[in-house]
Amino acid sequence: MTQIAFIGLGNMGAPMAANLLKAGHQLAVFDLASEAVAKLAQAGARAASSAAEAAAGAEVVITMLPAGPHVKGVYLGAGRVLTAVASGTLLIDCSTIDAETARALHAAAAERGLDMLDAPVSGGVAGAEAATLTFIVGGEAAALERARPILEAMGKKIFHAGAAGAGQVAKMCNNMLLGILMTGTAEALNLGVANGLDPKVLSEIMKASSGNNWALQVYNPYPGVMEGTPASRGYQGGFGVDLLVKDLELALKAGLATRTSLPLGSLVRQLYVAYSKQGAGRMDFSSIIKYLDPELEKK
Amino acid sequence: MTQIAFIGLGNMGAPMAANLLKAGHQLAVFDLASEAVAKLAQAGARAASSAAEAAAGAEVVITMLPAGPHVKGVYLGAGRVLTAVASGTLLIDCSTIDAETARALHAAAAERGLDMLDAPVSGGVAGAEAATLTFIVGGEAAALERARPILEAMGKKIFHAGAAGAGQVAKMCNNMLLGILMTGTAEALNLGVANGLDPKVLSEIMKASSGNNWALQVYNPYPGVMEGTPASRGYQGGFGVDLLVKDLELALKAGLATRTSLPLGSLVRQLYVAYSKQGAGRMDFSSIIKYLDPELEKK
Amino acid sequence: MTQIAFIGLGNMGAPMAANLLKAGHQLAVFDLASEAVAKLAQAGARAASSAAEAAAGAEVVITMLPAGPHVKGVYLGAGRVLTAVASGTLLIDCSTIDAETARALHAAAAERGLDMLDAPVSGGVAGAEAATLTFIVGGEAAALERARPILEAMGKKIFHAGAAGAGQVAKMCNNMLLGILMTGTAEALNLGVANGLDPKVLSEIMKASSGNNWALQVYNPYPGVMEGTPASRGYQGGFGVDLLVKDLELALKAGLATRTSLPLGSLVRQLYVAYSKQGAGRMDFSSIIKYLDPELEKK
Amino acid sequence: MTQIAFIGLGNMGAPMAANLLKAGHQLAVFDLASEAVAKLAQAGARAASSAAEAAAGAEVVITMLPAGPHVKGVYLGAGRVLTAVASGTLLIDCSTIDAETARALHAAAAERGLDMLDAPVSGGVAGAEAATLTFIVGGEAAALERARPILEAMGKKIFHAGAAGAGQVAKMCNNMLLGILMTGTAEALNLGVANGLDPKVLSEIMKASSGNNWALQVYNPYPGVMEGTPASRGYQGGFGVDLLVKDLELALKAGLATRTSLPLGSLVRQLYVAYSKQGAGRMDFSSIIKYLDPELEKK
Repeated sequence: MTQIAFIGLGNMGAPMAANLLKAGHQLAVFDLASEAVAKLAQAGARAASSAAEAAAGAEVVITMLPAGPHVKGVYLGAGRVLTAVASGTLLIDCSTIDAETARALHAAAAERGLDMLDAPVSGGVAGAEAATLTFIVGGEAAALERARPILEAMGKKIFHAGAAGAGQVAKMCNNMLLGILMTGTAEALNLGVANGLDPKVLSEIMKASSGNNWALQVYNPYPGVMEGTPASRGYQGGFGVDLLVKDLELALKAGLATRTSLPLGSLVRQLYVAYSKQGAGRMDFSSIIKYLDPELEKK
Repeated sequence: MTQIAFIGLGNMGAPMAANLLKAGHQLAVFDLASEAVAKLAQAGARAASSAAEAAAGAEVVITMLPAGPHVKGVYLGAGRVLTAVASGTLLIDCSTIDAETARALHAAAAERGLDMLDAPVSGGVAGAEAATLTFIVGGEAAALERARPILEAMGKKIFHAGAAGAGQVAKMCNNMLLGILMTGTAEALNLGVANGLDPKVLSEIMKASSGNNWALQVYNPYPGVMEGTPASRGYQGGFGVDLLVKDLELALKAGLATRTSLPLGSLVRQLYVAYSKQGAGRMDFSSIIKYLDPELEKK
Repeated sequence: MTQIAFIGLGNMGAPMAANLLKAGHQLAVFDLASEAVAKLAQAGARAASSAAEAAAGAEVVITMLPAGPHVKGVYLGAGRVLTAVASGTLLIDCSTIDAETARALHAAAAERGLDMLDAPVSGGVAGAEAATLTFIVGGEAAALERARPILEAMGKKIFHAGAAGAGQVAKMCNNMLLGILMTGTAEALNLGVANGLDPKVLSEIMKASSGNNWALQVYNPYPGVMEGTPASRGYQGGFGVDLLVKDLELALKAGLATRTSLPLGSLVRQLYVAYSKQGAGRMDFSSIIKYLDPELEKK
Repeated sequence: MTQIAFIGLGNMGAPMAANLLKAGHQLAVFDLASEAVAKLAQAGARAASSAAEAAAGAEVVITMLPAGPHVKGVYLGAGRVLTAVASGTLLIDCSTIDAETARALHAAAAERGLDMLDAPVSGGVAGAEAATLTFIVGGEAAALERARPILEAMGKKIFHAGAAGAGQVAKMCNNMLLGILMTGTAEALNLGVANGLDPKVLSEIMKASSGNNWALQVYNPYPGVMEGTPASRGYQGGFGVDLLVKDLELALKAGLATRTSLPLGSLVRQLYVAYSKQGAGRMDFSSIIKYLDPELEKK
């Protein structure tokens, strides 16, 4: 049983916090949305009136926030978490943010003698609810060992990507590649269908060949090919276009900062941005196949 | 035991023909290169002095040639195979060619009452030698059943992609996707390394996540990450840049003919063409990672 | 006064033929659409019942047809023009087609001892009506001199691009570059406006600087910046998206055939194809700025 | 005659400062490189030992520095210029930097009641020496009128792009478009030559047609087509690849910050970055034509 402060109770944070309660931990929770706080309080958490109040007395602080500026604000800015916590507190930021901000927070924590981990997740809301998230962690190995039992209450797989910020870098690399795989798979399926192939047969062949990838395995973008996927329910639910755009932009910023050539990654971002502006921001990202072939649904 | 004519004894055709001999079939072989014919004759094949002579009396004709015009020439042109064969002969073209030519050959064969299959392979020279090729077959199901025992002497997996030409279409779709996966994986690894990650660790994370694909599984492009790959022996051997360019160009031609939008597929082709012109045509295709980051080898 | 056969009386061909009549030439005209023929007959042309009949007795044959197969059909196929014409007849194909077909037609004409020119035009329907077309001509210089007075009745500028097929090559190069200029100009304007600039001011600055190009000079894609452009009338009229797609595809086919790396040209084609499939095929091509920023019209 | 502090005496700044001296102004100059300071002192400037010392007593401060952090450092950081200047001093930053930093400096100046202009230039070292630079200016119109006589001593054209930061935005938009024009022109020329055209003839045709752009007018990238260009002297001199990469990256950062879709702009940046990493960073940017076709020089 650990005293945990959980800050950020959105679509992801709320079920993650609930899973920590179920695992028997004591939680103090905070969010700007008071209903979210109230809901967790009903489930047994202590409602805090500020991030700092939640963090005071905690052995572990977990943050799950939308973007870098929010995280910076909570730890260093108005949230004052970094000054509110006792020495020895372990800080775990599960938000997906840029690596630069992550490294700056690690450095600020280290100055105060605190262990910190950047631990962005994959698995989406479904994974957060089912406690099957994947954590991709940056920071000291010893800090990760301290965090492991806590993370295991919220997820299944835990990767140690490297030093401070490495969790963020690994996640953005993976998600950039994911955007490329999905778009490439969509192109291959569109090309096959336009030339007379059955998308199911083509999917099976590529999955058993050198075109094999995660999209063909569990997330086929072509409508009707695979049950249970967003493609088979009108691209509702799943991983939204705008969430992928956010990850692609983090990757491209890291690419600009390190002068890395990313021709496919940046083309995929352009496609998804233009697609989002057509009103598709909340559609599942596999619907890029429809952006490439707007006549798809008539087939 | 079947009487087989085998036409085209290059790097792929020669070991394929040798495997048919080993399986106990009787072969008549032809190639413009007489040494290639002589070598197979030593192994037990009958040396024919022309494609038509090889084909006369055969129950099955197999062709393995560089490109569409050669195949057309052998069946319809100077090779006169289509008029030389007995009725009832099964024609199997294992070359990788454009779908349009494949369909035209099917139609010409059908006019003469002959069954034909387009059956391009994947697996490369190593697969041809080890009889572990994959065949991706277009044509009638009944014709494929006739061909199956023959194909099984040369390969392991046999896919039925659909009607005439579908084997070619499926292969070009797969290989276009392969080019995208490889380039995308290279970008993700370059980005990670530029931002401080260990390429082995990042590869493991992405392989276990939604970035998972064939390149990460068996053909990692980063030097030193995976043993036994071209990346670990200076990008020698493997699947040459120019062979991929050929497949990408078949895919793009099919895309132009059907007005299919292929942004990643066509960008990948541009990159590989420019790379090839720098003298890299015979390097393994995973070396695209060096084209994206020419400083890679200094790392 | 010259005896001219004019074959192909569509949106472009009809006003071109009318201008030849106005210039005092004698015309025999043919088109599959009999109303188009009737209209020209009212204006003084002789209505022919076939391409061959129109061509018989002509000193000059002009064709203006949609694509390569139509042109081939008229000269070599069912149209039988090549066998119908008297020796000494000059053949001028004003259609925009692939260079390969153009060269094959030149060769077939040369075998019969006939001079031929490929003379695709730019300037659109407005240019055809006002007799201000630009002709980009491939073929022998002497043949071009014979054609010059005829072409001058339909256009203003005449370029000699080189030998057989060179007219087609030069036109596809120019129009591929046009697609790139327009899309690039759209990106620059979108970027400026998104960062607070007035599109008029930015257009003036770039036009006076190293960003200067034809789009900024006479065809600004941003609504409201330049009077009289399609952008200022809802992108109606002008040069249709599908016409540009056709030209881009001719260029890309020539690029595939010569293994030329065309990263921007092929990306532009992918964007226009996907845009066309959203139903924009008949919109002016400068509306690509809206495809890149679908929120543009709300601004 | 105006008292001017000039900070930053590199390849661009030194000749700009020299032109101000020639025009009769009194200069105090500073640079970290003392030889650069000494050289200007010989020409009549007062050598200052720090940026702040140069700025003290100046009516106008001009900065010409490599990138945003340097500019920030000079005005707000160690350089302390913003606190060193007298009230009423006009600040002109001629560096090319990101718009965000430019706006932050304007705001800091405004807090102290000082007028500031961002006034990046185009024209290169040759333009700096000949006093023919173009200034693209952001800031208040009244401040620009104060600056005009000073700027006219260093350049020929002065554009008012808009409010604070607008000069930087306009310059990055223009230079992104320039990169696209140059690469697109290179592709069109490569395609034409590969298909048998003379690059001079094709250049003339496109310049007189809708492909017309600045590169065809004054900076043709094909060797031997236009005298006096970098292409005609082995791509030495001119506008270096790495300088364009810097501008492209400023544009892409502004695009990421405003979620603007820039497919061509970002592809061009990827190409130039990979090209730079092959060792071409100091080659003229028109040599991208060789990156697209490495066999060009054998032609």
